[in-house]
Amino acid sequence: MTEFIPPGTQFTTLPPAFPMKRGGALHDARVAYETWGTLNAARDNAVLVLTGLSPDAHAAANAGNPAEGWWEAMLGPGKAIDSDRWFVICVNSLGSCKGSTGPASINPRTGDLYRLDFPELSVEDGADAALHVVHALGIERLACVIGNSMGGMTALALLLRHPGVARTHMNISGAAHALPFSIAIRSLQREAIRLDPKWNHGRYDEANYPESGMRMARKLGVITYRSALEWDGRFGRVRLDSDRRDDEDPFGLEFEVESYLEGHARRFVRRFDPNCYLYLSRSMDWFDLGESFGGDTDAGLAQIRVDRALAIGVRTDILFPLQQQQQVADGLRAGGIDAQFLPLDSPQGHDAFLVDIERFDPAVRNFLNTL
Amino acid sequence: MTEFIPPGTQFTTLPPAFPMKRGGALHDARVAYETWGTLNAARDNAVLVLTGLSPDAHAAANAGNPAEGWWEAMLGPGKAIDSDRWFVICVNSLGSCKGSTGPASINPRTGDLYRLDFPELSVEDGADAALHVVHALGIERLACVIGNSMGGMTALALLLRHPGVARTHMNISGAAHALPFSIAIRSLQREAIRLDPKWNHGRYDEANYPESGMRMARKLGVITYRSALEWDGRFGRVRLDSDRRDDEDPFGLEFEVESYLEGHARRFVRRFDPNCYLYLSRSMDWFDLGESFGGDTDAGLAQIRVDRALAIGVRTDILFPLQQQQQVADGLRAGGIDAQFLPLDSPQGHDAFLVDIERFDPAVRNFLNTL
Repeated sequence: MTEFIPPGTQFTTLPPAFPMKRGGALHDARVAYETWGTLNAARDNAVLVLTGLSPDAHAAANAGNPAEGWWEAMLGPGKAIDSDRWFVICVNSLGSCKGSTGPASINPRTGDLYRLDFPELSVEDGADAALHVVHALGIERLACVIGNSMGGMTALALLLRHPGVARTHMNISGAAHALPFSIAIRSLQREAIRLDPKWNHGRYDEANYPESGMRMARKLGVITYRSALEWDGRFGRVRLDSDRRDDEDPFGLEFEVESYLEGHARRFVRRFDPNCYLYLSRSMDWFDLGESFGGDTDAGLAQIRVDRALAIGVRTDILFPLQQQQQVADGLRAGGIDAQFLPLDSPQGHDAFLVDIERFDPAVRNFLNTL
Repeated sequence: MTEFIPPGTQFTTLPPAFPMKRGGALHDARVAYETWGTLNAARDNAVLVLTGLSPDAHAAANAGNPAEGWWEAMLGPGKAIDSDRWFVICVNSLGSCKGSTGPASINPRTGDLYRLDFPELSVEDGADAALHVVHALGIERLACVIGNSMGGMTALALLLRHPGVARTHMNISGAAHALPFSIAIRSLQREAIRLDPKWNHGRYDEANYPESGMRMARKLGVITYRSALEWDGRFGRVRLDSDRRDDEDPFGLEFEVESYLEGHARRFVRRFDPNCYLYLSRSMDWFDLGESFGGDTDAGLAQIRVDRALAIGVRTDILFPLQQQQQVADGLRAGGIDAQFLPLDSPQGHDAFLVDIERFDPAVRNFLNTL
């Protein structure tokens, strides 16, 4: 499969043999990233953004790529993450297909794609890889690590594994471990991909691509990224106009909500590599900050050392439910950190940080302004 | 496909041409049912139970079939639905594969299975078919109509279409119309079945059966029938013992919650007909008690005439969320009915009425005791 690398992406090369947490090593791997703003002389104004499963490093327009990014409303000059003040780095997750080395990359030892020969990927590997980018940019200590969704897991892993890496932390709709409902959803998404005969144990190509499985996985994702409350108001029971329906198909799309899911799926399926999806998805299920503490996640949180932290969550989030951000804040505070918990009433569920700018802008802006 | 008819099932034959709400008619169709207790001389102690999508008519052990039923804990002598007092009828939904005529039945006009030649099925057809059973048993007026889940929709349709059919109504985790989150879930379940190449536009057989699609559909069902809260306590992050894992499969089952879903799916896939599943699932999406009132569901509820009603819901239900039972109670009350709303704190979500007997027994018992 093709990788999907935005123009202007920059790269940091990882050490020749980058050790993976669950065993094995990656050889001659790289991490994709982009930056906004200028690193100051003291090198103390750097903010690292760690992403969810699917985004690339292009969080917002910049000199290298003027196209809108996935967090355009939040990142830039004068915005909540103000690139006039901060030197912002966004990293594409290790294991992704958006520039960082992953299952869709060439294995230098064989000359073929890694596919399922990619070593087992954990959230902690993504954290370690991101740290190499930070160091390569000449930064010893970040002003803040911001992690969204899966990135909230990655940020906690980074902070626990590398004490002193950051002065502060903002955890947005993240979690310190995966819970069974989310594991069940992700397991089913992976099963949908694996059941597609065209997945072929990871050996698909453009002509034989597991599009049905990816479509199912994405639709289930979108269902869990938003909320029933939002959809009640947004779609209700509105039906598609007859010219948008296929009268030949007795079980075809009929309601607006079905068409919405279909649109999301179509935009996604050919733009994300299925094997990368499987690896990143599984890494979230495995993640538990308490792994080294006998499964005591709070003990892991209490070991983290930053000056201040903020955990933001959304009441309608069913994938990373609110009690998980409460746990992050409480757990950090139990370790002596000035940690706040901010629950938001956004109707948009897990995706709210991408779309409910009215609520997220002041939340993020206020925290960064007081640093 | 085979139908799955429990021993002891009884049948009522529908009129030779049973008209379907969305057009066409069923010829020589039948409805399966079972009964408990004795109809009194006044014929005024009959209680009708209408079920969710998948159950058969065997709600509890009876003379015809001593095996445990799906609502064994709630129905029988001295139980919440007390067969010493009530003559209880449970009807298998029209369109099902558990004895009532459905897509897995023989079309008498062709001698072949109906499959997708079955006419479009609506919840209202199920209500009309159930009424034929009631009348065939010599009952003019029911003491109570109880509907669970989809059966709650069927009960409301019955009451609206056939004024005077019942003195009272109990709506359990039901709804007066389908909301977009539930439509999205069911649409995805149907897509999983339809995407399975072995579904073959409904022309499968035992040897070529859409097992993968049915497994996906059932797993997604179970995820939405229960609740994240229950699973946090029940499964947490517990992993399967190594002897229950397949080391050859890098994406195989690892967590207890995945094994739980797999077990549920295995028990279901070969015991429910895929085409019947598609028809019944779609009928729920279509259901709106306000259809004849310009989509004003409350106007439909306000037209229903019973003496008393109770709508019971569960706070953790994401498929038929609590506000839908609140709407039923409020809407009936707006029409002048003595209607109560009873929200329960069960952690088991939509399935709570099947398993949280501690909360549901007194709720159901108290209502019936005061009739």
